[in-house]
Amino acid sequence: MPAPTASADLMATLVSLCKRRGFVFQASEIYGGMGNTYDYGPLGVELKRRVKDAWWRAMVTTRADVVGLDSAILQHPKTWETSGHVAGFTDPLVDCKTCKARFRADKLEEMQCPQKPSRTPLENKCDLTAPRAFNLMFKTHVGAAEDSASIAYLRPETAQGIFLNFKNVLESARLKPPFGIAQIGKSFRNEITPGNFVFRMREFEQAEMEFFVPPAENEQWYAYWRERRLAWYLEHGIRREKLRVREHEKDELAHYSTATCDVEYEYPFGWGELEGIACRTDFDLKRHSEASGVRLEYFDPETKEHYTPFVIEPAGGIDRMALTFLIDAYAEEVVEGETRVVLRLHPRIAPITVGVLPLVKKDGMPEKAHELEAELRELGFTTFYDEKAAIGRRYRRLDEVGTPWCVTIDGDTLKDGTVTVRERDSMQQQRVPMREVANRLLAAQRDWGKGG
Amino acid sequence: MPAPTASADLMATLVSLCKRRGFVFQASEIYGGMGNTYDYGPLGVELKRRVKDAWWRAMVTTRADVVGLDSAILQHPKTWETSGHVAGFTDPLVDCKTCKARFRADKLEEMQCPQKPSRTPLENKCDLTAPRAFNLMFKTHVGAAEDSASIAYLRPETAQGIFLNFKNVLESARLKPPFGIAQIGKSFRNEITPGNFVFRMREFEQAEMEFFVPPAENEQWYAYWRERRLAWYLEHGIRREKLRVREHEKDELAHYSTATCDVEYEYPFGWGELEGIACRTDFDLKRHSEASGVRLEYFDPETKEHYTPFVIEPAGGIDRMALTFLIDAYAEEVVEGETRVVLRLHPRIAPITVGVLPLVKKDGMPEKAHELEAELRELGFTTFYDEKAAIGRRYRRLDEVGTPWCVTIDGDTLKDGTVTVRERDSMQQQRVPMREVANRLLAAQRDWGKGG
Repeated sequence: MPAPTASADLMATLVSLCKRRGFVFQASEIYGGMGNTYDYGPLGVELKRRVKDAWWRAMVTTRADVVGLDSAILQHPKTWETSGHVAGFTDPLVDCKTCKARFRADKLEEMQCPQKPSRTPLENKCDLTAPRAFNLMFKTHVGAAEDSASIAYLRPETAQGIFLNFKNVLESARLKPPFGIAQIGKSFRNEITPGNFVFRMREFEQAEMEFFVPPAENEQWYAYWRERRLAWYLEHGIRREKLRVREHEKDELAHYSTATCDVEYEYPFGWGELEGIACRTDFDLKRHSEASGVRLEYFDPETKEHYTPFVIEPAGGIDRMALTFLIDAYAEEVVEGETRVVLRLHPRIAPITVGVLPLVKKDGMPEKAHELEAELRELGFTTFYDEKAAIGRRYRRLDEVGTPWCVTIDGDTLKDGTVTVRERDSMQQQRVPMREVANRLLAAQRDWGKGG
Repeated sequence: MPAPTASADLMATLVSLCKRRGFVFQASEIYGGMGNTYDYGPLGVELKRRVKDAWWRAMVTTRADVVGLDSAILQHPKTWETSGHVAGFTDPLVDCKTCKARFRADKLEEMQCPQKPSRTPLENKCDLTAPRAFNLMFKTHVGAAEDSASIAYLRPETAQGIFLNFKNVLESARLKPPFGIAQIGKSFRNEITPGNFVFRMREFEQAEMEFFVPPAENEQWYAYWRERRLAWYLEHGIRREKLRVREHEKDELAHYSTATCDVEYEYPFGWGELEGIACRTDFDLKRHSEASGVRLEYFDPETKEHYTPFVIEPAGGIDRMALTFLIDAYAEEVVEGETRVVLRLHPRIAPITVGVLPLVKKDGMPEKAHELEAELRELGFTTFYDEKAAIGRRYRRLDEVGTPWCVTIDGDTLKDGTVTVRERDSMQQQRVPMREVANRLLAAQRDWGKGG
């Protein structure tokens, strides 16, 4: 299998593919765009759905020890005072007294003067103020009055919604540690620095899980989740050599954390955080307990003791996961003298699993194709029907968006009931009875990547 | 089948059930709550996922003429100037000069003076100002400066994100009218009036589809979607007699709309809108086209003409759908001298499809149960494993959250490989070979509600 393109242009190529094929568009593009904000098109929304489903399946549905939650974006402002976000979730910013522009004080060497031609860094003439703390939470007002009593924040993380509901979930779902509460949902950060496409956005979708454990089991569960989360990416097709786990140094850790690591991926712009796994100890539950006066503890009926569980938190971004799957899957190769672009996405991640193609749009072939489509959809496959253009061109269009299989219905199908199944990566074609296609693809999906 | 409870207390009963069993909690409850805002617990998040999946399946996955989209909550502010929301998306409010409270001017008779005991309406002593328009959009600031140039709004509807992307979707997905673009996502409205639980919230999840048609086909597609959306509720188990379609009178219509109707449900608090189907004509595309200078039209290669499609919009709220399914499903009945609470949810909507219950937690029964669970999950069923308490009590707990089937593994299972399958509504039990359970339940789900 040829190595994917590793050029510095990969990001530009991918952004262009994403727009052309309907994965990702710039938000409000017709109005000149909205900074660091993107919309997902028809294929992008299916890709994201598949990433979310794969995460939810691994983290919630197939586990007896984890339940789901969906808490609101707008929570009581005390939430963010208690969590420390109101006081501490800040970037240091400086103003230029000459041009009134604002810059990140800790990234001045990357900043650019807006009064100078493109790519000119800040100069001595720029008259900068001392840095001041700029809070990254979006602020709004709830209710009819715009006073300080009505302030609300768009959540900067989904995790706090889980801590607030600890007691309600514990009691309604009859759980005992170790157990987890998982959530997928939008978070918002008023980032000043640009973002490498959907890698860092102001509005993004998080997938977080808080795993509550007896304090003595903290280390073993941290090791467990670090291994498990890395394995999840491997199981869904990310190349091993592009992944690494980096343990944080002691001076990098939040004051309450005993250990934290990042699962990192080697992006075209360098190694970057794909997901973090953090030991948050009992910090959050204790803080919310003190601030609210509501006891957020577990009562162990065997020891007859109340205790505050420790927390292990695997937390990633769905948008960043989707981007990583796209980058990792992108490949160009020369086939019969022409360049073939192919996304080698895992079948559980690919936005379309099966292309269903009647060779010509007559002689009953479209009808047979629709029949097969209905059967495959019933089993959870996403199908795409295409009857336009030459068959080779249709294959290429489906390769480019990562479709693992194409099934072609032709004249022989009507005579002997067989169809051609084409596999994306090997481009091998096989003649198969149409009634066996569904089972073969189910098996192929289950065994994907296991053959080597 | 006995009629469900129709008492005025049904809402209170349901709110209590929702909290106790982990469907819905008040947001920020430990901090005294956040008005009109709710969090979904472990069962609620699965219910919502099922409602969203059922909608997406019917509106996108199984249709060749509709594609999906996921646009950002924060769009360029020109979006909302052009759509008319900045100028016109308002409620009339009055202030009381005595107590400084604010009220909806058009609902004064329902309002209550905050200085008077509960349930006291406004009096002559209340000194009210003239009404002024209060915009329902949440406002925030993007970027480092808090000036008018940085204002952004949380979207009050997902529809505009679809119109902004019309051209990008049309070109990338190679579509031609009639075709639809569908979206599920959060919207925000700064409502002043209270909401009947999750019926009307400040933060809610919409499911909207804009169906673009040649202008001459406007009426036929309006009729089609009105019928189709009503049918969707019936197919998912809502009782026919609780639904009606109400056509808007001419004076109710938005100035650009040629026809609009509501699918209404008879809630415990009266008939209310469940979903709206609106003819929006070419209003939105034309407005955005004029404001942005980008042509939002379709070029018909056969007639060689550009035209602006007309739009039919079926738009509902996922939270309201979920609430409606719960209300419609709730029933109490006397069984063997005891009251049984049961949610008669459709298997495609129920948060748990199959309860898997080893009679006792020994003799290899738990292992058999986990084996069956794994098989059922592979086929898309949501399973719940329960080995605690007497079997009758376990059935009741699963009835109360709407689980259509329970499978019990007992001593005979280990001898002859059979299990007991219990059906929720009839409470009938049948002895079935364990290897046949999956196929039987798939068939029962497919045929659900068709027998009568």
